[in-house]
Amino acid sequence: MASSGGRRLTSSAVSLTASSGDPGSLSAARCVVTGGLGFIGSNLVHALVHAGASVAVVDALVEGHGGTPHNIAGLDVEVVGVDIGDPAVREILRDADVVFNLAGQVSHIDSMHDPLRDLQLNAISHAAFLEHLRSVNPGARVVHTSTRQVYGIPGDAPVDETHTTRPVDVNGVAKLAGEQLHSVYARAHGMAITSLRLTNVYGPRQRLTSDHVGFLPVFFRKALHGQRIEIYGDGTQRRDCLFVSDVIDAIVAATADHVAGEVFNVGSRRDESLGSIAKLIVEATGSPGGVALVPWPEEEQRIDIGSFRTDSTRIHEALGWRSRVELADGIAATVDFYRGDAWYLSST
Amino acid sequence: MASSGGRRLTSSAVSLTASSGDPGSLSAARCVVTGGLGFIGSNLVHALVHAGASVAVVDALVEGHGGTPHNIAGLDVEVVGVDIGDPAVREILRDADVVFNLAGQVSHIDSMHDPLRDLQLNAISHAAFLEHLRSVNPGARVVHTSTRQVYGIPGDAPVDETHTTRPVDVNGVAKLAGEQLHSVYARAHGMAITSLRLTNVYGPRQRLTSDHVGFLPVFFRKALHGQRIEIYGDGTQRRDCLFVSDVIDAIVAATADHVAGEVFNVGSRRDESLGSIAKLIVEATGSPGGVALVPWPEEEQRIDIGSFRTDSTRIHEALGWRSRVELADGIAATVDFYRGDAWYLSST
Repeated sequence: MASSGGRRLTSSAVSLTASSGDPGSLSAARCVVTGGLGFIGSNLVHALVHAGASVAVVDALVEGHGGTPHNIAGLDVEVVGVDIGDPAVREILRDADVVFNLAGQVSHIDSMHDPLRDLQLNAISHAAFLEHLRSVNPGARVVHTSTRQVYGIPGDAPVDETHTTRPVDVNGVAKLAGEQLHSVYARAHGMAITSLRLTNVYGPRQRLTSDHVGFLPVFFRKALHGQRIEIYGDGTQRRDCLFVSDVIDAIVAATADHVAGEVFNVGSRRDESLGSIAKLIVEATGSPGGVALVPWPEEEQRIDIGSFRTDSTRIHEALGWRSRVELADGIAATVDFYRGDAWYLSST
Repeated sequence: MASSGGRRLTSSAVSLTASSGDPGSLSAARCVVTGGLGFIGSNLVHALVHAGASVAVVDALVEGHGGTPHNIAGLDVEVVGVDIGDPAVREILRDADVVFNLAGQVSHIDSMHDPLRDLQLNAISHAAFLEHLRSVNPGARVVHTSTRQVYGIPGDAPVDETHTTRPVDVNGVAKLAGEQLHSVYARAHGMAITSLRLTNVYGPRQRLTSDHVGFLPVFFRKALHGQRIEIYGDGTQRRDCLFVSDVIDAIVAATADHVAGEVFNVGSRRDESLGSIAKLIVEATGSPGGVALVPWPEEEQRIDIGSFRTDSTRIHEALGWRSRVELADGIAATVDFYRGDAWYLSST
């Protein structure tokens, strides 16, 4: 059990207490969470259900993605198993007060192997979803999750929202198109939509058994198995990693009316080298495998962006949000969670 | 017959002489032009054929777009009538030296009425096209046409390539995704691709009978019919309009090897108010209809970007290109062209 700044992180669930994004404010709300069986989505669903909100999930359980019913096992939640672009979502959207649109494909490498699939899932499906929502419930409050990947290779760090958006892979192009569609619908159709560009997120309920959903779940899986963590290059590349409860706080905070139409960065206040991050995970797990530096695979290097650090000043000023969980504490809570549920290391 | 800076503009065709983008340099090249039956595409095809190049066109003649076989009537050109994403393009791409990828849907309003169609044509089809090209001819030289619309509402004018890209309509989102896909393929796959962000283009072979492909063809049609030109708002909104021969020069110049991977603005050195542009067209035609200011239609105003002026310094420095045709001369040549071919005013 780890603690950080008076905040308790439990091993079985991400606890959410008073914060800049208090889900208690949504206790009477009818919420829809797309991608609600996935990593961030299911953590949001847990927080909303615990706060007393009515929650419905749209999740197509797309193969290779992070979604699994296991993530919300035991919760009283309606699940609609269709793509967000399917007209069947209209019924579930019709009476929603708040729509959390978190669905998406996240793999950079997969997007380079199958560009059309990524564009379909991250852009086309979102366009269809926005059309469905506009036709049946244009007044709903919408929070959409985008990614720091839309920036591509950063210029001067830290990167704020005015930084140019030049993605280096198809996934970044498609995610940016999806985000910009949300902005177009906010501006041209007057819909109350806020988008959040998330940095690298880690914590409970992430799909550990895939090598394609980011480096953090791979690091955790290797260390929890006692295997060696391999880092591409020299290990000095930096990332500002966010514990998932901080992200849920930001998502809930972003339902505030006065930020409709805005796009915010959501990153940690501190960045660390991949070498340091791996070392912390090895220490938290006691893994005998340690850490090794290995050469970059060519196809990974071609879409690498180097070091990245997010400037989250704007969301702090607008909503009071900032990251609160220290990396070591978040890693400890994450290790506790996966040690308490062997499913995540054995599933495929 | 108008002249500008020693350059002759004929009424029947856009003549191309020595310039920063001399098509003579492509006299021995096998060229593919997508969208080659459209406005800019067909002007490029004329220039290439006259220079002696071998030219094949890919154009699906998508309904509502500007493409028509009339635009290249009499030219010895192979035409493949499929979408650029169709696998049938592989055969035609296999032996190409230079690929001019100009295909696209251009209507802002249509993109708001049918977002999925616009995304399909401007993003998905281009992703499929790039995959086809990569698989059969990754060494081809590629020039792709994007649009100043990717910038959205300009900050401080003039707008250079470092300006943020925040489109205000679905067409801008989809065109930006299409452009960024080209940049990803250039960087990650080492393909020799250059994209050009074109400002508002006018001249021969534009589809005059549609209200959905820009304000310039509407202005020309109204004036040529002696009807009143209607301008939304107060007529002070500014654009830097490019005569199509200047654009063809830029496209040809962009085949230079040293600009592979680059994205350039292509705009006129001068901007004018819509009121002034309309007045010049009325003067050139002698139209009795004149010009009137009318209120903005709401759905047009919601996606309006205000005034826009392009900074084309980078392409001038890299390739020596800059606009050469004065607006009054280009308008005179355009009026001559349409008076010499009544088809453009009568077709539907």
